[in-house]
This record gives sequence, structure tokens and C-alpha cells, in this order.
Amino acid sequence: MQTAQNIYDSEEFFANYACLPRSVRGLDGAPEWPALRALLPELRDRRVLDLGCGYGWFCRWAREAGAGQVVGIDVSQKMLARAGSYPADPAIGYRRADLETVELPPDAFDVVFSSLAFHYIAGLDRLLTHVHRALTAGGCLVFSVEHPIYSAPARPQWLDTGWGTTWPLDHYLVEGARSRDWLATGVVKHHRTISSYITCITGLGFSLTGFVEWGPTDAQIAAQPELAQERHRPMFMLFAARRR
Amino acid sequence: MQTAQNIYDSEEFFANYACLPRSVRGLDGAPEWPALRALLPELRDRRVLDLGCGYGWFCRWAREAGAGQVVGIDVSQKMLARAGSYPADPAIGYRRADLETVELPPDAFDVVFSSLAFHYIAGLDRLLTHVHRALTAGGCLVFSVEHPIYSAPARPQWLDTGWGTTWPLDHYLVEGARSRDWLATGVVKHHRTISSYITCITGLGFSLTGFVEWGPTDAQIAAQPELAQERHRPMFMLFAARRR
Repeated sequence: MQTAQNIYDSEEFFANYACLPRSVRGLDGAPEWPALRALLPELRDRRVLDLGCGYGWFCRWAREAGAGQVVGIDVSQKMLARAGSYPADPAIGYRRADLETVELPPDAFDVVFSSLAFHYIAGLDRLLTHVHRALTAGGCLVFSVEHPIYSAPARPQWLDTGWGTTWPLDHYLVEGARSRDWLATGVVKHHRTISSYITCITGLGFSLTGFVEWGPTDAQIAAQPELAQERHRPMFMLFAARRR
Repeated sequence: MQTAQNIYDSEEFFANYACLPRSVRGLDGAPEWPALRALLPELRDRRVLDLGCGYGWFCRWAREAGAGQVVGIDVSQKMLARAGSYPADPAIGYRRADLETVELPPDAFDVVFSSLAFHYIAGLDRLLTHVHRALTAGGCLVFSVEHPIYSAPARPQWLDTGWGTTWPLDHYLVEGARSRDWLATGVVKHHRTISSYITCITGLGFSLTGFVEWGPTDAQIAAQPELAQERHRPMFMLFAARRR
């Protein structure tokens, strides 16, 4: 079993990460948040787990939405320190653990959430096996990851072809680690196809209840015209599944 | 309600289509067939419907696999004439209908199959509503379509970037008709995202049981080295779903 890279605890990455809109503004700084929120079930009185909780934005939001108990797990000490700097809520517990090796209590959660963390994990099958066990029957898993169209290419940058802007897609079906220079050099992400995600989810005993390839809405583009380019290729995808 | 383009009955298209490996060699000439076959349930004594049956290759194969009754539907008179030129099998019935407007009897089939036809259909929701009704409870829908990565771009052709071969992806999230010059000029296909297919399927009361973004196996590439390029981007995707 390998351990995750924990790039978030590198000084360079953490300092750059802190400047992203989603770090400064929280959930409302993430353009895919409204679509992700729409996949969530009612949280009132539910026990909620956030895998890769970062600064704890979602944990606090879940409490505002009525969640009874919230647990946030992250591998990064720096992230958890920031999460702990907010006013304490006895119904939120933070825990440091590596998602490659984390152990979860069985039948302990009604909702498991994760935002943009699973593509850092090599052992997704192992993790989702544990998530399945940690959920109550009928419990929900809702998560976002980078879209494989975004993670696949050898050079993941817009290309001007002369007839327009294009996304140079290659190696889509070649799964495995991709080393990227994003906020720091040598960030390791794990590229897997949509088939692989869906086969993993349905094979473990979940029913797929939602799948969104995220793109900006017309209103988002009106407010932020540079988002228009995102319609050429989805950067994120969002899943909702129910434990059978 | 619109009618489909029925490009298959154009002389130019039909003549060129007749030369494709999948036309000459049948199912074995289609590299994705082993993966599609793997999604099929047991056919013995089942009632099977093939939407967009073309020359009838699958209808005849289904009978060899033990299917009790097989119905093949196609909009193309030329295709059906070719299908009818094979030795008659009283358990196979061919019928001419446009998949945009076709009516299907309720609870009449155990398995509905379709190979590379649904991306010609504008009204997929309507068609799959009818398919759902035509299936018995627990019945299976198995189909292949062009992958949206393949259908999206303004110029769907390999591009040499200087650092390798790439697929110039753009307009992925912009759904709708695409006019293509493929075997004939102005062939109209309907581009929709994977989200749209899955949302349509699960929203109509199917459970998604299989999803494959097709790529060549190592053995296929060894036998046909030009297939290696197909790993850069999937050309087809395959779905299996069960009527709830």
C-alpha cells in the first residue's frame, strides 16, 4: 500500500493554493459548487464525512445545512491547522489521515463527500471499498474529480490551431500517474477514464444516481467571460452514488 | 417530431459503407464487438430487438446465440434489402422504421441492442422512453455510440503538434447536430456528452450496469498496429442498463 504524495504540505504548494479563489472565498469561489451541491441529499441530522476536507469549508457548510455530526479527514497538517483556526464546533471533528491507507468505522455515515481529492489517490478501489462499508445502507457518496479529458494530455494546455482554441487531447486511454507542474513542480495525479470510475463505483455495490461533466452556465460566463473557454472541454466531473 | 436523415439510403454513402471492414466481415470486422458482446446478457430463448440493424449481422448472431425471436429495425431500405438477402429465418423479422418516430409494443422484449445508431437520433429521450416501455422488467439495453470526444471537435482529425499526435478537442460541452463528411458529405450526427447519455438513461428508470470507453486491447494492436493511435482518444462508448 502506498502513501499519498501530500503535496499540500509543501511550502510552495500551500502558499500558492492559499491564493486560489476557492481558498480565499470558500465554496462560492468554486464554479462547480452549485452543480455539486445539487447532487447532495438532505443533510439535516445526517452524519457526514468529508474526505480531503482542506480548510473545512464543506464541513462548516454541512453544519449550517443541518448536519448532525461532521468528520473532516485530510492528509495535510497545514490544511487541518487552517480548518482548526475557525471557531470550534463540537459537532465537527477533524482527523489527519492519508486516503491511501485510511481506516473508517463501518455503518458510521449517511453521506460521504469529497471535492477534488480522489484524483490524487492511486488506490481508489481500496478507498471506495472502505467508503462503501462506512456508509449506512442507502447512504450517499457525492464527489468531484478532475475530468480525464483534463488530466490525460502530455501537454495539458490550450493550443491555438489557427482555426481556434483547442485542447490537445492524447493518451486518454492510458491510465496511471501524471506528474504536473501546478502550483508546485511534480504534483502527482492519477489519471483514470470515466469507465474506470463508473466500473469501480458500480462494481463495489453502489448505484450511480448522478453524473455531471461540469461546464459553466450562461450566467457564470456572463459574470466571468473567461469561463467560456471551459465549454471546449470539461475540467471537472461530479458523481453521486447510493450504497445498495 | 423530426425524422432522421437516413443517409444510409444515399447511393454514395451506401456504396462507401459497403466497403468498411464491419460491412464486409460483419461483427468480427468491428474492433469494439468483443467488448460490446461482453456486456450482453444470456440470449437463449430471449426476445431481442436490434435498433438500427443494418445488414442484420447482429440479428443473425443473436439467433446463433439461441435467441427465441429477433426483430431488426432500420430506416434504410437498402440496408434491409441486404439483410433480407441472407437465408430466411422465420424467427427473425425485419421492419422499416425511423428511430425518431418508431412505435414499439410494450413489454415485448428481454433485450434491446443497438450498434452505432443512437448518435444519428435527435430525440434520444423519446426513443429510450419507448425502449424502456418495450422492455420487460429486468430487461437489458445494450448499445454503442460514438464517443463525444470523437464527435465534438470542429475539425475531427488527428493533428501533428510537433511533440506528437493529438486529437484537437473543442466544443465538447456544446451539444447538438454536427455535420460531417464521412463516407458522404453532410452526414448529420448528434453530439451529446456522457453526462447527457447517463442522465437520460438513469432518469428514465434504467440502472446503469456497464459503461466502457472503448480502446484496442494489446492483442488487437499487435495484430493491427495502426489501432495504437486509438488509445489517444476513444472513438466509441458502450452502455449496458437494466430496466428497473
